[in-house]
Amino acid sequence: MGRITSRYRVLRLTEGRLTARPDTLAAEEPLEIRVAGRPLAVTMRTPGDDFDLARGFLVSEAVVGRASEIAAIRYCAGATANGGNTFNVLDVTLAPGVAPPSPSVQRNFYTTSSCGLCGKASADAVRSASRWRVDADPLRVAPKVIATLPLTLRAAQKVFDRTGGLHAAGLSHADGELMCVREDVGRHNAVDKVIGWALNAGRLPLTGATLVVSGRASFELVQKAVMAGIPVLAAVSAPSSLAVDLAREMGLTLIGFVRGSSMNVYACGDRLGLSEPVSP
Amino acid sequence: MGRITSRYRVLRLTEGRLTARPDTLAAEEPLEIRVAGRPLAVTMRTPGDDFDLARGFLVSEAVVGRASEIAAIRYCAGATANGGNTFNVLDVTLAPGVAPPSPSVQRNFYTTSSCGLCGKASADAVRSASRWRVDADPLRVAPKVIATLPLTLRAAQKVFDRTGGLHAAGLSHADGELMCVREDVGRHNAVDKVIGWALNAGRLPLTGATLVVSGRASFELVQKAVMAGIPVLAAVSAPSSLAVDLAREMGLTLIGFVRGSSMNVYACGDRLGLSEPVSP
Repeated sequence: MGRITSRYRVLRLTEGRLTARPDTLAAEEPLEIRVAGRPLAVTMRTPGDDFDLARGFLVSEAVVGRASEIAAIRYCAGATANGGNTFNVLDVTLAPGVAPPSPSVQRNFYTTSSCGLCGKASADAVRSASRWRVDADPLRVAPKVIATLPLTLRAAQKVFDRTGGLHAAGLSHADGELMCVREDVGRHNAVDKVIGWALNAGRLPLTGATLVVSGRASFELVQKAVMAGIPVLAAVSAPSSLAVDLAREMGLTLIGFVRGSSMNVYACGDRLGLSEPVSP
Repeated sequence: MGRITSRYRVLRLTEGRLTARPDTLAAEEPLEIRVAGRPLAVTMRTPGDDFDLARGFLVSEAVVGRASEIAAIRYCAGATANGGNTFNVLDVTLAPGVAPPSPSVQRNFYTTSSCGLCGKASADAVRSASRWRVDADPLRVAPKVIATLPLTLRAAQKVFDRTGGLHAAGLSHADGELMCVREDVGRHNAVDKVIGWALNAGRLPLTGATLVVSGRASFELVQKAVMAGIPVLAAVSAPSSLAVDLAREMGLTLIGFVRGSSMNVYACGDRLGLSEPVSP
């Protein structure tokens, strides 16, 4: 796992003064995910926890929902001309009876949505693909617990401190204790890695869990949360319009701008015990 | 273009006090890009400048390099069941004689790289696909000009102030004057939009230009800069390892952590007039 970061010689210019020094950068390398030998997707990711990344990706894309539905994962030797193993290509063998994804699986949610209106069509697509219903999750979590999550996540980020270049995703219990944290140059990869960890640990659906992310909340992250059965998503920065639309359609609690003791609740505030105040 | 932002009712919790208020969010919607009626890619983007986004995407993917190679772009009516136009699906007609992309075009750079080592293979792929050589660009730009770019870019971001949720990309002349700025929920989309603007304005290759981005510098952004003939990329945050590898291979000046008068130069500092100091 030495490839999570790399050292580079860099020229540092500060206050008009030039120095040369080594700098630690987050590693970014492509990972090709194959299923039964057939290329399915390529993602630019930070090496490490690649099997979990593949597992989480397959959960997000509605291919698997239980660990037993994956028979094996292995890095492909022979991917290079000289037969070497770059550890950048892996192949997933599904268990007998599990339907393989169609080659266009990655785009199903998006194409459905681009042909529809206002997130309703994409919500229908996510709902029909998902095995669980997050709107029925009885989780209650205190706003003061949500407020602790960004700092807890940040403290658990081992690589960010050295590089300043990584997103993080974490899964927490209702009391704010983290069960899993992953870092990656791509925030969707970090989320896939924690979901893949949960799949492998037999924890899906992630009833009662909160997903916390270091950046913004996009449509894609809400979709991934729903596909893993996670009822609450808390983001340090802003959500997009479509993320809010999907969260409201699916009954997922969506919180943004979690900073200090402040936060914005965009969907399903009842899980935080918040009732709508009289409008100002 | 009313869809660049959307208004949402949100519960705001601050210092234990709850209020309900409207909040402005960056719009995120899928855009399906078709070429000659055939689906090529779907990207989650902020609506606006969609034709430039498609143009820039096709430049990045080595399909076109001159405005005249695109005969027409239009939104597809009839993409929905009721025949309506969602303005989320567009079709590009290439000029006669221009080879259409293969359906897997989006993954060529990545798959090549995942089968190779350390960015060398991906650099070979980018080099063979690119029409221009950025390493021969004689641009000289002063570090004090680079230092102004993030603030200039920020000042030009119209939508960020209202949403806090958008990336920005800008193209600047050697004196720091911006020629084009675009915002998007996806940073690769913001870059495609400025490159597509340049294609349509007959400005490719972007000799003498600097690309400035609000976030981090990934492999993908360096690749896009090279494909548009841009010799300098300046980012507010960290580059990834593969971004530095590709920049060094291609002769592109890569600058990160541009903050105040400080910056880190990761590749080709000669364009900034920097010569390597004696190692500390």
